[in-house]
Amino acid sequence: MNTVYLNGDYVPKSSAKISIFDRGLLFSDAVYEVISVINGRLIDMDRHISRLERSLGELSIDGFADWAAISENLVTENELREGLVYLQVSRGVMDERDYRWPAPETAPTIFAFAQNRVLVANPMADRGMTIITRPDLRWQRCDIKTTQLLYASLMKMEAVAAGVDDVWMTRDDMITEGTSQNAHIISEDGVLISHQLDRRILPGVTRIEMLAQAKSMELTVEERAFSIDEAKNAAEAFVSSSTLLIMPVVEIDGHKIGDGLPGDRTEKIRRNYIAAVQRA
Amino acid sequence: MNTVYLNGDYVPKSSAKISIFDRGLLFSDAVYEVISVINGRLIDMDRHISRLERSLGELSIDGFADWAAISENLVTENELREGLVYLQVSRGVMDERDYRWPAPETAPTIFAFAQNRVLVANPMADRGMTIITRPDLRWQRCDIKTTQLLYASLMKMEAVAAGVDDVWMTRDDMITEGTSQNAHIISEDGVLISHQLDRRILPGVTRIEMLAQAKSMELTVEERAFSIDEAKNAAEAFVSSSTLLIMPVVEIDGHKIGDGLPGDRTEKIRRNYIAAVQRA
Repeated sequence: MNTVYLNGDYVPKSSAKISIFDRGLLFSDAVYEVISVINGRLIDMDRHISRLERSLGELSIDGFADWAAISENLVTENELREGLVYLQVSRGVMDERDYRWPAPETAPTIFAFAQNRVLVANPMADRGMTIITRPDLRWQRCDIKTTQLLYASLMKMEAVAAGVDDVWMTRDDMITEGTSQNAHIISEDGVLISHQLDRRILPGVTRIEMLAQAKSMELTVEERAFSIDEAKNAAEAFVSSSTLLIMPVVEIDGHKIGDGLPGDRTEKIRRNYIAAVQRA
Repeated sequence: MNTVYLNGDYVPKSSAKISIFDRGLLFSDAVYEVISVINGRLIDMDRHISRLERSLGELSIDGFADWAAISENLVTENELREGLVYLQVSRGVMDERDYRWPAPETAPTIFAFAQNRVLVANPMADRGMTIITRPDLRWQRCDIKTTQLLYASLMKMEAVAAGVDDVWMTRDDMITEGTSQNAHIISEDGVLISHQLDRRILPGVTRIEMLAQAKSMELTVEERAFSIDEAKNAAEAFVSSSTLLIMPVVEIDGHKIGDGLPGDRTEKIRRNYIAAVQRA
């Protein structure tokens, strides 16, 4: 994936460099999107653009580009069949470091790149993910997709150290979300429970289509926070994200979910989700 | 201030560029320090180095350089008399974006620059700062000096919009700190109250010397959180930071502190602080 996009140009990865005075680097004053690519097609591009525009709006960053064209060009130039496109927008480069925003005419810094990744045939879908829970110490505007990902990265390393696949984060013992996925359970009585959209979680693009699939399977959906105990006692658990798509969870804090195998309804949501986005 | 430091070299500002795959840019996986310069001398360099090493240690970033020599070279090359030196260390550049840390042998990205700023003759010291309070929505490891400064920057813009100088942030109505300063008050009965060192505030380098000066003035010091109401009813209020040094606060949420002028003890701490760091 050697061709990347930087401020209007398509350049080799090695020459994609930006000033050390970029606000993304000095103040984490930047937002991003990750769009999945399956069979060379960008999945749910319009929803990613909407969310990017919302993130930019929340921070009053005046960033605009033809996001779809940039993403498509990266797919074509890099001959990407399956993987992701990453887009990032920061408030731009300052003359001098200052917490205050630079003049409104300052150009945002926009870059994008593509990465190969196995999405559909991910072997993790057959074995399911193992999860540990940890306190959610992130800032309280997790609905904005900013590059303030240090805590999520630290938690991913906690998972590596614990020999599990990922971390679900909690506030007051209620699960918010995974390090880079929304978290969901299906209760013993067959209710799909997913944290409501508020400032504690990212409004997942994959979550939207997942909920539509669940409803078409006639699952009852409750959008509310659920506790660690509720999760441990659930019949099924899973995550949704642009790169994991729908991914079963089989263990939380060492406790098996259901019989410890990916749940039937989770697997059906995954199959239906993949079919739906490929048809769209 | 045209000469900056980047990964071992001193280069012109315009050529100080780093890869878009730097973890500082993609994950805010970076820490920094700001050291004040007065009369061409770096103030409290050893304490800044200690804190930088602590920040790096908390994140297991293996960053090492001769921080003092880099800082001194920037002062000399840029003929800086008064202002600041900024140092930043990130976990380095990845081949592919991944939340997990790259191989341990990955070189950290280290850069530094100098900026002119009036510190001692800052006219704000005569008029005092005006402050508003806002909820502290930052992450819960504010003791690590990371580049996750987006919320602080947003709050600085709130201050600009409100026509005041800065924001003091609160958790559960208790003041944590300013956007880039530690916050302190002197109560009606002459007790200097300063938030205890914990994960809610940055362990200020200037705060250390400030507390030493206060004790030598025989002020009683209590290190504990104080409420918005306590602050409004204080006899004096002030902040400490590397670039504001000691700076009086004369108004909080539209409420005058004392008689609305910089406090006598605050002014004395500022004078003594400036004298002490220049002697050191």
